[in-house]
Amino acid sequence: MALEIERKFLVVGQGWRAQVRRSVEIRQGYLGGEGGRASVRVRLQGNAASLNIKAAVVGRARTEYEYDIPYADGREMLDTLCVGRIDKIRHYVECDGLTWEIDEFGGDNAGLVVAEVELASLDQVFVRPPWLGREVTEDQRYYNQYLALHPYRSWPDAD
Amino acid sequence: MALEIERKFLVVGQGWRAQVRRSVEIRQGYLGGEGGRASVRVRLQGNAASLNIKAAVVGRARTEYEYDIPYADGREMLDTLCVGRIDKIRHYVECDGLTWEIDEFGGDNAGLVVAEVELASLDQVFVRPPWLGREVTEDQRYYNQYLALHPYRSWPDAD
Repeated sequence: MALEIERKFLVVGQGWRAQVRRSVEIRQGYLGGEGGRASVRVRLQGNAASLNIKAAVVGRARTEYEYDIPYADGREMLDTLCVGRIDKIRHYVECDGLTWEIDEFGGDNAGLVVAEVELASLDQVFVRPPWLGREVTEDQRYYNQYLALHPYRSWPDAD
Repeated sequence: MALEIERKFLVVGQGWRAQVRRSVEIRQGYLGGEGGRASVRVRLQGNAASLNIKAAVVGRARTEYEYDIPYADGREMLDTLCVGRIDKIRHYVECDGLTWEIDEFGGDNAGLVVAEVELASLDQVFVRPPWLGREVTEDQRYYNQYLALHPYRSWPDAD
């Protein structure tokens, strides 16, 4: 178990691209329906697969559990048991000692780019990179499980 | 991944008790809401904990994945993230080369006793023990995830 403290922002412009250290393709989906107290995510990242369980609350701090599973299991679950799918490229950017994860969504969420940073405490102060837009930590529409079922392109106010 | 072939029956009377080889206490609950394509179960059994993912279909054959997890994680998830709870004692009974799992439910499902047997093929023939009642393999009300949310004692036709 870990308490994950994270803040999430929209990304403005393309300035971040020059700062990318590495990128990885991610495919993920969700097990179980809506309305539970937790989300259960299956993720394929490179040649690894994992199960992730997170409290279904909105905000900066969420309890999280993560377990590696066999890749073949992950792929099968994604193809046969998951509801909703997310495809994205995760770019890693270092800024003032913090690692930002910039998720560039594909498929039905194309056009959406979101930056996340993991912090050591709820009130940690950090330098805002110039490409950082509006904070969406408290906006559940930007949570991957929501996007999986209600893709960005279907939003009335997208783009 | 494994395809689990299982048949499930009600248990009649107490005759089975004399045949019990061993018994173990089980506490379990479910992550994620209803309406998904899979159930995600957290189980504590003795001093072990596991995550189990099963296709949400009713019938004899269901795809199943199972992973051991740290006991502390399992207990925490059960206490904080699970929806619905099942407490039961599982008794193991050997009959004509097959192992029957007899689940004696507690809590809000007290009064319900169900026997399950795992088979090698869908049409495997087996000897019916004398305490075996009506088959409920196709009746989703007897699935643990249903019982967790709609306990036996709340059924209009329960005892």
